[in-house]
Amino acid sequence: MSFERVAIIGLGLIGGSIGLAIAEHLPGVTTTGYDADPAVRRRAAERGLAGTICETAAEAVADAELVILCVPVGAMGEVARQIADALPPDALVSDVGSSKRSITRALTEALPGQPVIPAHPVAGTEHSGPDAGFATLFHHRWCILTPPVDADPGLVASLAEFWRALGAMVEVMDAEHHDLVLAVTSHIPHLIAYTIVGTASDLEEVTRGEVIKYSAGGFRDFTRIAASDPTMWRDVFLNNRDAVLEMLDRFLTDLEGVREAIKAGDGDSMFDLFTRTRAIRRGIIELGQDDARPDFGRADHGA
Amino acid sequence: MSFERVAIIGLGLIGGSIGLAIAEHLPGVTTTGYDADPAVRRRAAERGLAGTICETAAEAVADAELVILCVPVGAMGEVARQIADALPPDALVSDVGSSKRSITRALTEALPGQPVIPAHPVAGTEHSGPDAGFATLFHHRWCILTPPVDADPGLVASLAEFWRALGAMVEVMDAEHHDLVLAVTSHIPHLIAYTIVGTASDLEEVTRGEVIKYSAGGFRDFTRIAASDPTMWRDVFLNNRDAVLEMLDRFLTDLEGVREAIKAGDGDSMFDLFTRTRAIRRGIIELGQDDARPDFGRADHGA
Repeated sequence: MSFERVAIIGLGLIGGSIGLAIAEHLPGVTTTGYDADPAVRRRAAERGLAGTICETAAEAVADAELVILCVPVGAMGEVARQIADALPPDALVSDVGSSKRSITRALTEALPGQPVIPAHPVAGTEHSGPDAGFATLFHHRWCILTPPVDADPGLVASLAEFWRALGAMVEVMDAEHHDLVLAVTSHIPHLIAYTIVGTASDLEEVTRGEVIKYSAGGFRDFTRIAASDPTMWRDVFLNNRDAVLEMLDRFLTDLEGVREAIKAGDGDSMFDLFTRTRAIRRGIIELGQDDARPDFGRADHGA
Repeated sequence: MSFERVAIIGLGLIGGSIGLAIAEHLPGVTTTGYDADPAVRRRAAERGLAGTICETAAEAVADAELVILCVPVGAMGEVARQIADALPPDALVSDVGSSKRSITRALTEALPGQPVIPAHPVAGTEHSGPDAGFATLFHHRWCILTPPVDADPGLVASLAEFWRALGAMVEVMDAEHHDLVLAVTSHIPHLIAYTIVGTASDLEEVTRGEVIKYSAGGFRDFTRIAASDPTMWRDVFLNNRDAVLEMLDRFLTDLEGVREAIKAGDGDSMFDLFTRTRAIRRGIIELGQDDARPDFGRADHGA
């Protein structure tokens, strides 16, 4: 493994999972970790999310060959400034954030001359914090690298090798395309889920208790996504604004079309749409990105 | 049990699950079954979805005390007319459809003088057809009865007892309120899911392969719902139009608000919404209507 000392800044779901995955898959690699919250640092030490938990970010990166920033997108620039003076000159700085254009800009501005290769493991759960991580989170999930045009190809290859060692599959694309792809596969789904859960909780004619009781009709799947970390997601929408608005407007146009079909009693165009969407589901299951068990095996829940 | 002979018309996910649940929980009750599709009838016989599989709907109901119509909402009236002459005069006719006002109207018009109590078990999976059913589908799920104002209270009690015997919890409400509640907890979530999956599959800048590869970022949860039976869902939207349009317009208003917040860079109002939505999720888990395991236990998939 090209990196023998890895520093993890931010020890929530993703940072903690990286630490645990390194311990499991790369036992020769030493890890240092830091989180701005002292309570998180204590819990991270108890769970062994990194070999050494440091009291400052600068201390954590001082001897690192690879530094991975696992903080909300909006905090990347500030954290980069905190570690700038302590970083070894040839340490590679990477991250795990969900909007790559803004992060690339923030990191390269805060760390002039430092090797920077942003990355995004497309994996996660609705849970957050130092208790949420687990070693297999990245297994059979894609990690997207978005190297700047002047990135060292050897470092790109090393970072890809690192993520593959944690169980991930690696893809390389430019930051702009990443942001468009993730807007549709992740950001808009979250935005819609947050919104419909908000709509449902504000109704007067239907009580919150009823919404909860009858959620098995489809609504509960949206609440899982809408339980994701609020800070992380606020920052994603603030930082991937253009791509999110572009995709949101496509969705709104399509939704208006379906609304008109319902109003007009046009069953054929609904049937056509509802049939086409099954093909995508099949593709996701065939590619191993979801489970074909009904309700992911939860149908027996309560039995 | 008040009903000793139950006829099930339509042997897909719900009808098949009712047959299997009766066999498991009410072994003294005999069942007859019918499906318009001969291939479904053959498969239903192989799986034992009903004790006797009949060649016509009339034959299936001829000796029944309870008849449950498990066909798409739009087919209820036609099926009721097919069985009208064969029904014993005091047999109770019920159903499992997702829009109660239109079904109540269709059944009472087609079966004048017959006891009719519509019902809706709020349970299901994304799979359909005679292989999809299983005996525990209704365990710990709500079944809503919507008796007409002149319904016999004794029959309402008997139907409630029947559903409780299959593992369900029972609630009684009027059809109009049911349609509003289900519009928000089930119909709008399905409509949104179908639409965003359609939007994603029609993009030119992002390929369908990319949408599938990176679906673990949230999108895949929508594809599960959008894999549901197209005929059933077309009929739901055609038959619960008013409530669906009312709830859709609320959602659109809220989504427009979030869109403005993103445009304006208003992180505070986003953070507020993203925090409020967590309370509903907690309620759903506390009430046993969903599973708290991350990704419903599928996070290790592929490990």
